[in-house]
Amino acid sequence: MNKQLTILQKRLLTKNKVDALLISSSHNIGYLTGFFGFSKTEREGYVLVTKKHVYFFASGLNSQAVEKHIAAMQDTTISLVEISPRTPLTKHILATIITKEKIKNFGFEKYHLSFAEFERLKKDLTTHLVPTGFLIEELRMNKTDSEISAIQKACALGDKAFTHALGKIKNGITENELAFEIEFFIRKAGAQLSFPSIVAFGFHASVPHHVTSNQRLKTNSWILLDFGVQIDNYCSDMTRTVFFGKATTEQKRMYHTVLEAQRRSFEQLSNETMQQSGNKPIKAADIDNIARSYIVSQCFPTIPHSVGHGIGLEVHEPPRISLKITDILTENMVFSLEPGIYLPKAGGVRIEDLVVLRKKGPEFLTKAKRSFLEI
Amino acid sequence: MNKQLTILQKRLLTKNKVDALLISSSHNIGYLTGFFGFSKTEREGYVLVTKKHVYFFASGLNSQAVEKHIAAMQDTTISLVEISPRTPLTKHILATIITKEKIKNFGFEKYHLSFAEFERLKKDLTTHLVPTGFLIEELRMNKTDSEISAIQKACALGDKAFTHALGKIKNGITENELAFEIEFFIRKAGAQLSFPSIVAFGFHASVPHHVTSNQRLKTNSWILLDFGVQIDNYCSDMTRTVFFGKATTEQKRMYHTVLEAQRRSFEQLSNETMQQSGNKPIKAADIDNIARSYIVSQCFPTIPHSVGHGIGLEVHEPPRISLKITDILTENMVFSLEPGIYLPKAGGVRIEDLVVLRKKGPEFLTKAKRSFLEI
Repeated sequence: MNKQLTILQKRLLTKNKVDALLISSSHNIGYLTGFFGFSKTEREGYVLVTKKHVYFFASGLNSQAVEKHIAAMQDTTISLVEISPRTPLTKHILATIITKEKIKNFGFEKYHLSFAEFERLKKDLTTHLVPTGFLIEELRMNKTDSEISAIQKACALGDKAFTHALGKIKNGITENELAFEIEFFIRKAGAQLSFPSIVAFGFHASVPHHVTSNQRLKTNSWILLDFGVQIDNYCSDMTRTVFFGKATTEQKRMYHTVLEAQRRSFEQLSNETMQQSGNKPIKAADIDNIARSYIVSQCFPTIPHSVGHGIGLEVHEPPRISLKITDILTENMVFSLEPGIYLPKAGGVRIEDLVVLRKKGPEFLTKAKRSFLEI
Repeated sequence: MNKQLTILQKRLLTKNKVDALLISSSHNIGYLTGFFGFSKTEREGYVLVTKKHVYFFASGLNSQAVEKHIAAMQDTTISLVEISPRTPLTKHILATIITKEKIKNFGFEKYHLSFAEFERLKKDLTTHLVPTGFLIEELRMNKTDSEISAIQKACALGDKAFTHALGKIKNGITENELAFEIEFFIRKAGAQLSFPSIVAFGFHASVPHHVTSNQRLKTNSWILLDFGVQIDNYCSDMTRTVFFGKATTEQKRMYHTVLEAQRRSFEQLSNETMQQSGNKPIKAADIDNIARSYIVSQCFPTIPHSVGHGIGLEVHEPPRISLKITDILTENMVFSLEPGIYLPKAGGVRIEDLVVLRKKGPEFLTKAKRSFLEI
């Protein structure tokens, strides 16, 4: 039995007062069972975990693959329930399991079940339905060595992709062409992208989630590159902003303000880790605040997003490094530190790195040069 | 005002007895407003359509891009509501709109709103919440000429990618390497993938949604290629199965059975279109049935998925060409015809093409050769 499944069955089900949990997030299914074959964008299956059993609900689209995976898990408490792709959770099968295992409180992932799916369960089942929050995501927050090692590999390839991209920057290249260069480099190395790369020239850099376009590069423009690598299902994420041409003093000041904001949040993490002998919790909100308030103190607008986010199987996952959040940062969490300044009429700068929080302090996983660069 | 928005406001809101509809699907937002900047995988914003106004709810992640888009729409009834990324639908703003516009029945997309989002609305609002089904998707089913033209472009590039892939097939190549060749070809042409390509060698071809792996190609294997191109936000989707080596008589019979099943479903569409003068509706279930029953009549197992699906902004969207569905096929619908035979110990064959249903009959949009091919 997978360690994570055991934790869920022995500890979390009881703690959350549910006898069973229906897992619909394919990331959570992958994390718990090692089966990553369900689509990330469409619902292809579910996993139902009870205190004693694990049921994979899969249709002919991938039931054979699930069957093979279950056989490899060598655990008789895990089984496949074949379903039709159009009636994924049949009343009859669920009702049988609920009766047989005397399930009174049936949990479901409220962030990952659509209202329509909930409505269906409500109509079909007489058992009590219990919405649960980020139950599995909370397990996922503190990474194991092998998870960190996968993220590290992804980060290292990302660093190389950045160097490769720098070599391709030239007058007239389009955002899409430069994004393709990054993608090609990563895919050729046998890895995947974590998300569609963001390449933003000039004013476009002032939209944090700019959609890469056919804009051509002109002299004296910001170039913002935000991209990630996925290796063995684990993601990296990094942003670098460089200047094409000769930057003004104010543009340089903008860059150095972001860099200093990031440095301060990293330093705060180091200081707090050192003080941790007294078990003072490291509040994510404080890490956000230190970067944010530095930027504001330099007379730039506040960051229109949080300073960081957890990363792993998903590009964005708990914890959040955000002012309004009560998340506490603990050992082996991996997250981004990504302050930015966005000026609609003058472009934008974001510097994003991943760090892992070790017992002794934070360590950067992305290592590409952060110093100001003119090309 | 966009035509689709007008239809929604003037006709659909009244018909569905809602005064407002909260749209959360980023595909539906793109379709209605032309703004495709919201993430397809994470919730970045919403659009609220009332009988008189349209509100974009967007955070600093892309509010500037939304603002620019709204300005280009030149319609004073459309406006931006700036939200925080962490509190996307603030009670206060929604309550103000609801009071001002006297909204009594507040619709939401039940297939696209998570239970957690619903729970939040329920807690915050006193107005009546009305779950709606595939309201916008039903508008999307019958394509305009420009939509069909975009899909046609995507299909044409897919055909070329298939020819390119054929030239790369050689002993020892891995599934991932061949998938990369397809991807590289499509991305180099400036287009996107509709979905991660499926490349399946040998037995792997018997899992309809096989996850492309590092399996190497050996002589006398099936090669199944299922991939799609995205151009101007519209998707194509095609599957070809070829044989590497020398096929047995039974393997050839398997291939020709799938091909004949597809031909029969296409022919049925032609026949039914010609009879349409009497306005007899074309039932999607009949088109599924004719392919499915032919395969079963040849002593092969039934198809473990539906025979086809609508396609457009999404790879899978209504209508469904499925036995259990009551969908009716009408003019300018675009959908796949993709019968298959899957034998766990002997591999699989699927042939998938896109057709557009014209007044005079169906037309293939994908045109790559379908005849049996040994390489």
